[in-house]
Amino acid sequence: MHMIVTGGAGFLGQQCIARLLKNDLLVLAPEAGKAIRSISAFDVAEGALQHPKLHYVVGDIADPHQLRALFCDDTVAIIHLAAVVSGTAEADFDLGMRVNLDGTRHLLETARAQGRLIRLLYASSIAVFGGDLPAMVRDETTPTPQGSYGIQKYIGEQLVQDYTRRGFIDGRSVRIPTVVVRPGKPNGAASGFASNIIREPLAGRPALLPVDPATAMWVASPRAVVTMLMHALSLAPSAWGWHRAINLPGLTVTMQEALAALKAVAGESALALVEHRADPAVLRLVNTWAARFDTARALAMGFAPDEHFEAIVRAYVEDHPEALVDH
Amino acid sequence: MHMIVTGGAGFLGQQCIARLLKNDLLVLAPEAGKAIRSISAFDVAEGALQHPKLHYVVGDIADPHQLRALFCDDTVAIIHLAAVVSGTAEADFDLGMRVNLDGTRHLLETARAQGRLIRLLYASSIAVFGGDLPAMVRDETTPTPQGSYGIQKYIGEQLVQDYTRRGFIDGRSVRIPTVVVRPGKPNGAASGFASNIIREPLAGRPALLPVDPATAMWVASPRAVVTMLMHALSLAPSAWGWHRAINLPGLTVTMQEALAALKAVAGESALALVEHRADPAVLRLVNTWAARFDTARALAMGFAPDEHFEAIVRAYVEDHPEALVDH
Repeated sequence: MHMIVTGGAGFLGQQCIARLLKNDLLVLAPEAGKAIRSISAFDVAEGALQHPKLHYVVGDIADPHQLRALFCDDTVAIIHLAAVVSGTAEADFDLGMRVNLDGTRHLLETARAQGRLIRLLYASSIAVFGGDLPAMVRDETTPTPQGSYGIQKYIGEQLVQDYTRRGFIDGRSVRIPTVVVRPGKPNGAASGFASNIIREPLAGRPALLPVDPATAMWVASPRAVVTMLMHALSLAPSAWGWHRAINLPGLTVTMQEALAALKAVAGESALALVEHRADPAVLRLVNTWAARFDTARALAMGFAPDEHFEAIVRAYVEDHPEALVDH
Repeated sequence: MHMIVTGGAGFLGQQCIARLLKNDLLVLAPEAGKAIRSISAFDVAEGALQHPKLHYVVGDIADPHQLRALFCDDTVAIIHLAAVVSGTAEADFDLGMRVNLDGTRHLLETARAQGRLIRLLYASSIAVFGGDLPAMVRDETTPTPQGSYGIQKYIGEQLVQDYTRRGFIDGRSVRIPTVVVRPGKPNGAASGFASNIIREPLAGRPALLPVDPATAMWVASPRAVVTMLMHALSLAPSAWGWHRAINLPGLTVTMQEALAALKAVAGESALALVEHRADPAVLRLVNTWAARFDTARALAMGFAPDEHFEAIVRAYVEDHPEALVDH
């Protein structure tokens, strides 16, 4: 069986592909597991991961012709991760609309045109929530996105919902918490500082905390997110029912707690590398984000969050020995 | 000053234009009223209304080139009514996406490209609500549209919201109740029967009631809706604030109450022309619609519903003497 991962060269894309190839089985309930024949990783560039079953396709997701060429007769599932991140979508409106909205729509159209029910996992984001929020955000809380990224992601959810209702695809949308700790270089996400303040000091480099240390965020580790994405893909349609968008479980953590975990793992010298300097632009955006969720539905469906924040930091240390200095 | 009315040859479009030309003043708070130089009515065909200041432009709203040609240096406002209605959008998905989604997006883009803040009134619909709804629907109730029309309208609201937030347009979206009594021929709207059961018997013709007489709907008369659209357009941006979508006031009426009003106005002989014959397809759709709203915000902003349903029927009789038989 063939699978497509858009944004397949990106951070989450590479992790998802690695996980899929490790299992080498595409478990799509209620059908039995089938061997993976091939994975097409569609992105603007190739990724580092190499495997005989992995094929990179470099292209533009807003070009329907390129998307059409991605599909094979045995394509059964798509993980749609390709996106322009929040900071970039806010800075370049047209680029965000093109990639996040047009790209998603073209992908849905192309999947529909295959004439069989292809399963599509859509990576949405908690950035669909914002503004005046209840103390606890639930699946049924009205999204009122405060930025273009959240608007575009939310529109994508609506399309996935309707394409699914009409039987064009078997879609499911997951609103991913802020992923911490992201390895590598900072990306354009406004939430990037939450990773920076852990990753950079662990590597012996300084980092900026642009928000109040009491600022809380809703986070999940890469490991937990990848596990949840695999789970979201594998669940039978009946497990989803009508509503195809869900808030994924995560942890509520204040930046202060995050720094305490950094100190517990890497000591005072690492902590000393973090400088608190408020950035009004980041603060304005982050303050509109939701930090506390009741994810009862997702938990009942078998999605699981990280244990606690220190475990997230320790997992990063385990997974990225190359990105550490001795503390 | 120049104005654009998309869907300007349609029922609401013609009524809006007539009202604008009658006042001959474009009141756009907080600026003083300015004389209307010209109105461009954009639609797939010309309308019946004729006036020296009214110009029909026949075209395709999904064609950006045609939209660009609509704008003048003194274009200050747009009423965006053009849409494929609910039944049609459900029957022809691609047409609905093209007109309701692409058309709206192109219009927003073209308005943005003018380089000054153009006021845009977007006709949304209570069809954005559906499914498991609270007893009372509020502005902050989460829309979970059950049909493609509702999805497309809701996506339009999200775009209007973001284009407004970014300062590209001065947008406002109003969710219009089911408009009753629609004159003329039945259109593709699944809610059409609510008008049919009044209009057709008044004209001496039989009509079908395809739902249970206890079925309640949220309705407003053409007069009330046009008055509310004019009000929505005229309000200053500060009256709207951040949230640019609002549920318009209406009346909750059961089909039984509607028929009682028909009898009160036109007697037993009119009532006898209505046959109750359940249509499962219509029933399925209508049962997902919201019928009871708390429109406190709209009322506080000065929007006003009809007095009662009989007044709606009497207004129709007054406005359409040509479409009546003696009862």
